[in-house]
Amino acid sequence: MNYPSRTIEEAVQEIARLPGIGKKSALRMALHLLKADKSLAYGLSRSLVNLIEKTTYCRECFNISDSELCQICGSHRRDSALLAVVQDTKDVLAIENTGQFTGKYHVLGGVISPVQGIGPNQLNIESLVSRIAADPGIREVILALSPTMEGDTTAFYIKKKLAEFDLKVSTIARGIPVGGDLEYTDEITLGRSILSRVDF
Amino acid sequence: MNYPSRTIEEAVQEIARLPGIGKKSALRMALHLLKADKSLAYGLSRSLVNLIEKTTYCRECFNISDSELCQICGSHRRDSALLAVVQDTKDVLAIENTGQFTGKYHVLGGVISPVQGIGPNQLNIESLVSRIAADPGIREVILALSPTMEGDTTAFYIKKKLAEFDLKVSTIARGIPVGGDLEYTDEITLGRSILSRVDF
Repeated sequence: MNYPSRTIEEAVQEIARLPGIGKKSALRMALHLLKADKSLAYGLSRSLVNLIEKTTYCRECFNISDSELCQICGSHRRDSALLAVVQDTKDVLAIENTGQFTGKYHVLGGVISPVQGIGPNQLNIESLVSRIAADPGIREVILALSPTMEGDTTAFYIKKKLAEFDLKVSTIARGIPVGGDLEYTDEITLGRSILSRVDF
Repeated sequence: MNYPSRTIEEAVQEIARLPGIGKKSALRMALHLLKADKSLAYGLSRSLVNLIEKTTYCRECFNISDSELCQICGSHRRDSALLAVVQDTKDVLAIENTGQFTGKYHVLGGVISPVQGIGPNQLNIESLVSRIAADPGIREVILALSPTMEGDTTAFYIKKKLAEFDLKVSTIARGIPVGGDLEYTDEITLGRSILSRVDF
């Protein structure tokens, strides 16, 4: 594409490096920034630099945080006996939004994926083990990972690692989504939901 | 949503002000920037500031440009007798990509839209008239506007304004898109394509 200006071409290329953004959307955004009030571009530019300069990872749970200890880990209202192991920050937000979980978290930073070359050592699994070893107050670890091959592999690996401790290891329930149609549910999900049926 | 850090919340809010980006996509981008090499966020941040500080509008055609006179207006290879009137920069790029147009442009910066409160005075129409008045070399003006109500209104308005000059005013052809199916073409388009049939 022949851009009318080098500057706009550079901006389009930079914006298009973001996930899910193509060249066309990037151009639309660049033109929007040019038309809009200048404070929009300045604000966005500043917040991007702040994002990578001011955030850190919580020393306890490895979630993204503004301080050394995140709000959840530092809170006295959260149940320290309950630990949810999740893949990343998006999952913490998703679980927090349900309002159903009162415990604390441990963010792995990914899942075991031989295809992508991610092994257990690149994840926050060793720190999970030492965190549990150091705190006998932790009574249950909920493995809240996605029901994919990578998620299941990671869950099995962690379960084995935690076998030496006297605690309950659970996983989030798999079954038919609320509002889902039985007829259109795939056979693996439906089969699992029959095997793990609950009293009514 | 309860973000784990104020900084990430601010970044998500700023990113979500871009057109076509919701809070979820914004969060995905923010987390991507945190995971990726820092040069990505710095580069993006810098290019946004450059975008609004270094670009200007061409004094002839009002297209976005790095210099006072844009590459197209400054080029001796373009046909100065032919002027395409377009809504904005996106349309200049679209026409340039066809490789079918050798003339120059005039960018209106929008179309007349009473609903959005945009009148002829907010567009570069007066400058189009004075540009044509000053340059008797211009022989044809092609109104390359979208076939919407606003686009048509703007085209009629400009046609009336140019009535005093001795030049040809044309509009881009409307008809069935190449590769389109006659059966599924709406009746207005099909009707127009029959009325404006061409020799074969």
